[in-house]
Amino acid sequence: MEFSEHIKTANVEDVVLRQPLHPQRKGTLCITGHHLLFSGREEGSSQQVLLLLRNIDAIEKSVENLLGYSGLFSNAGHRERISGSSGTITIKCKDLRVLQLDIPGMEQCLNIAHSIETLSCLDCVSEMYPFFHRPSDLSLQDPWGLSSPERHYSEMKELHDRWRLSSVNRKYSVCPTYPPAVVVPKDITDDMLMKVAKFRQGGRFPVLCYHHRKNGMVIMRSGQPLTGANRKRCREDELLLQAVIDGSDKGYIIDTRSSQQAQQARMTGGGFESKSCYSHWKRLHRQMERGKALQESLIKLVEACGDESNNMDRWLSKLENSKWLSHVQTALSTAGLLAECVERDGHSVLVHGSEGTDSTLLISTLAQLIMDPSCRTMEGFLALLEREWIQAGHPFQQRCVRSAYSHARLLQESPVFLLLLDCVWQLWRQFPLALGFSEALLLRLATEAYSSDYGTFLGNSDQERCSLGVKEKTHCLFRALLRPKEREQYSNPLYEHTELAIWPSVHPQSLQLWRGFFLRWTPQARHLEEAQEEIRNMITEWGKLAVS
Amino acid sequence: MEFSEHIKTANVEDVVLRQPLHPQRKGTLCITGHHLLFSGREEGSSQQVLLLLRNIDAIEKSVENLLGYSGLFSNAGHRERISGSSGTITIKCKDLRVLQLDIPGMEQCLNIAHSIETLSCLDCVSEMYPFFHRPSDLSLQDPWGLSSPERHYSEMKELHDRWRLSSVNRKYSVCPTYPPAVVVPKDITDDMLMKVAKFRQGGRFPVLCYHHRKNGMVIMRSGQPLTGANRKRCREDELLLQAVIDGSDKGYIIDTRSSQQAQQARMTGGGFESKSCYSHWKRLHRQMERGKALQESLIKLVEACGDESNNMDRWLSKLENSKWLSHVQTALSTAGLLAECVERDGHSVLVHGSEGTDSTLLISTLAQLIMDPSCRTMEGFLALLEREWIQAGHPFQQRCVRSAYSHARLLQESPVFLLLLDCVWQLWRQFPLALGFSEALLLRLATEAYSSDYGTFLGNSDQERCSLGVKEKTHCLFRALLRPKEREQYSNPLYEHTELAIWPSVHPQSLQLWRGFFLRWTPQARHLEEAQEEIRNMITEWGKLAVS
Repeated sequence: MEFSEHIKTANVEDVVLRQPLHPQRKGTLCITGHHLLFSGREEGSSQQVLLLLRNIDAIEKSVENLLGYSGLFSNAGHRERISGSSGTITIKCKDLRVLQLDIPGMEQCLNIAHSIETLSCLDCVSEMYPFFHRPSDLSLQDPWGLSSPERHYSEMKELHDRWRLSSVNRKYSVCPTYPPAVVVPKDITDDMLMKVAKFRQGGRFPVLCYHHRKNGMVIMRSGQPLTGANRKRCREDELLLQAVIDGSDKGYIIDTRSSQQAQQARMTGGGFESKSCYSHWKRLHRQMERGKALQESLIKLVEACGDESNNMDRWLSKLENSKWLSHVQTALSTAGLLAECVERDGHSVLVHGSEGTDSTLLISTLAQLIMDPSCRTMEGFLALLEREWIQAGHPFQQRCVRSAYSHARLLQESPVFLLLLDCVWQLWRQFPLALGFSEALLLRLATEAYSSDYGTFLGNSDQERCSLGVKEKTHCLFRALLRPKEREQYSNPLYEHTELAIWPSVHPQSLQLWRGFFLRWTPQARHLEEAQEEIRNMITEWGKLAVS
Repeated sequence: MEFSEHIKTANVEDVVLRQPLHPQRKGTLCITGHHLLFSGREEGSSQQVLLLLRNIDAIEKSVENLLGYSGLFSNAGHRERISGSSGTITIKCKDLRVLQLDIPGMEQCLNIAHSIETLSCLDCVSEMYPFFHRPSDLSLQDPWGLSSPERHYSEMKELHDRWRLSSVNRKYSVCPTYPPAVVVPKDITDDMLMKVAKFRQGGRFPVLCYHHRKNGMVIMRSGQPLTGANRKRCREDELLLQAVIDGSDKGYIIDTRSSQQAQQARMTGGGFESKSCYSHWKRLHRQMERGKALQESLIKLVEACGDESNNMDRWLSKLENSKWLSHVQTALSTAGLLAECVERDGHSVLVHGSEGTDSTLLISTLAQLIMDPSCRTMEGFLALLEREWIQAGHPFQQRCVRSAYSHARLLQESPVFLLLLDCVWQLWRQFPLALGFSEALLLRLATEAYSSDYGTFLGNSDQERCSLGVKEKTHCLFRALLRPKEREQYSNPLYEHTELAIWPSVHPQSLQLWRGFFLRWTPQARHLEEAQEEIRNMITEWGKLAVS
């Protein structure tokens, strides 16, 4: 495919750009296969705005002809009548920015709008920008990623007498969404794993994701067991879980669905671990919202944040109505429960919901942040995301193809990863010294997950990224973020290592709207950023003085 | 009066103290005329809790006798039956802290409770603690207060050709709530002022409170004109306002009541400046809540903050229902309007509502903070409070005698000053570099206004403080806060002087609950304080290194 066939008008002069936090400017608009580039008339690179088309979630066209008629058009049939007029394109981005372009000439305006509409949602992953992005200070020969299942396993030496690294999935044939190597109980053979995989949704048999050094307990995750209406059993699955707890008295299963939902899942072939078959495991149900409900919650919240009615009651009632903060609360409190089981009560835990690719990852990640100081440095956090989201098969492509502004019918979109970042932000705010990274890193990740110069969030699984050649043909975001200059920008100057668990308060009164993200394009958020920068500057300055 | 007659039991051993953010402790409880003192068994001053009885807003007694019966008692008739039991006193403070004391022996418990109930709300101002507080590093011979109307006038030299200092009120006979000296237009004689005073509620004739150096405009404030149902006029009042604008085209009157409220006020003898009599003045009405409505809003908010139902929707709906944030929004936007009239449009403004002692002071103070950089240093801010609240006659005694927990019938209580501090906090959060003081100062002031070791907030007016001998017999809070050690604690390490006005965003989305105050006794607020302290420490450390 040639991008050029979608670009009828590549350049327009005398375009007026209006964007938040900046005065309006006049300049040249240019559309390429992947970018929208605006160059202001005045000199200086700050006059340029470069926007990935992939970042655009929705556009609106409005025209004003010379007779003063104005309206919204979605139909090209009006073109004759309105030539000679000018048009405005409103661009709503996945990072929640809203830009406006006043474009002289209706024809040009419609051409530009058409190009944006088409190019911003091309499906073909291998033609996306990460495959073309070639920054001068990165090489495609650089190693990709921060770690690997193999390395992660080799670092957990204490485990090696009871756990092994299995490459049963080396061809992605046992579980298409797992990486080629996974950690499982030593006594469970690859043949058994294959049988267990058939008994778990999406082939996601229970694998180890975290080992708590302090007491040797572990967190496992999986898909739901496919017991179905007939209460089917799988001997190997039962043996696998038995092998996890081994001598100890019992383990916990945290099911991220309500007990009723788990019951209902049996009607469609899913199910849960019954008490009779898994006698040493105690199930705890915690209903977490996912999928469409979560996406709708985000849409409502973003709509509320954009409400300009200036009415306090209305704002608070819309905020409540969006339920977003309830989802944050549920996620943090379920993660807290998981961490309590492991750290306080000293039990191993298996986590799953239905597919095991969304809320399962959300709470296993948060629990690790709560318990494990090594996940709280910048490298540690990025490696945790790599393990628990990228390698563990969160379907980023499906979940993040559209965001809160899109009018397209909802398919598989869901802001689970954004919800994770919001929860991490709550942790960061409640424990301002405990995390080695700053809010800016979370904001950067929230943007990159939806549209990126890097290959990290492409595809839905390791298998997909492998077949696309992502590791050979794109650069790795996480490695880029750890270059000295970026690292400095994203580090938390107040960071102080602590071995202690950081137990978040999940009282509704303690949780806040993540203004830095949801209101980031307002002047207010700007000032907070300025203050952060000021702190960083002061510390750098004084640091220099202290050294000299 | 002897305090001792209210103290039947002065000491109790083996009392258990439970307070937020601390583990529970056992020790000795001691009641004095002004304090409740708890000394923990372990050594160290951190084991002591010294609480001003005046800080106590409400107490609850609950008893548990040896038969396991438990209940709330308000009646001493039960004493016989329950001797030998133990009791719990829950103490709810005006600074929103809640403490619990488990006291062995019902008799002792009831005695203690009775002492607290009586001593915490004694009316006699001259027996309050500020008259007994004698810290070693302050002397009663030290000057009192930061400035005076005379000094303030002498500093505004540019005004001297058109304004004068009048001592018409030197005996507090013209306006009981004004200080002895006030600034008025030069052409208006003291005789005229006396006539104007009769035409304004509470004798509060229009006086100057702020001169905007950049363009020479001023802010005046007053009580409402007493036009009444018959549309009475006062020639001298009209001349006074005419003299304010002099040559310029017009002035504004910001009335902190709705137009309808102002109309209704005529029925009870009040009123507003009619267009026909004050042709060069344009009235703007902005309805601000005051009095009882504001107090009830605070009570609802504090109740919501203490809600332990752990339900996010319920919390947000209670927050909305309290209306507190709406009041913050209205105050900031009305202050913004006032500053706009003066700074942007270049007009002088008269502000009043009914009495001119509450919302009038609120918005004139906020507008000065917005426009005038000299009010944004720590000294400048405290001097502003001294001028606009202490000298200008905000009735602190009436407004702050009770706070959010009291079950007493509402009289004149109203958290106007607390609302001011909340609005200043919003400014501080939106402009983290612009104010020379920190959140900690606002928290300290919020506590001191309700119960204090110092005399600053005693009484309802300069006259009352004068007749009580406050300046001779108590110490001044503002001066105490400016001692080097305290000043360091309350300064903003990020402060950078700016000449610019700081225009707050008053979008509902931009305003936040002041968690540092309303949730200050929760662990979460504690962590934020720790972070602040960490920043301060780092800066001090590096500062030392840089100097050495």
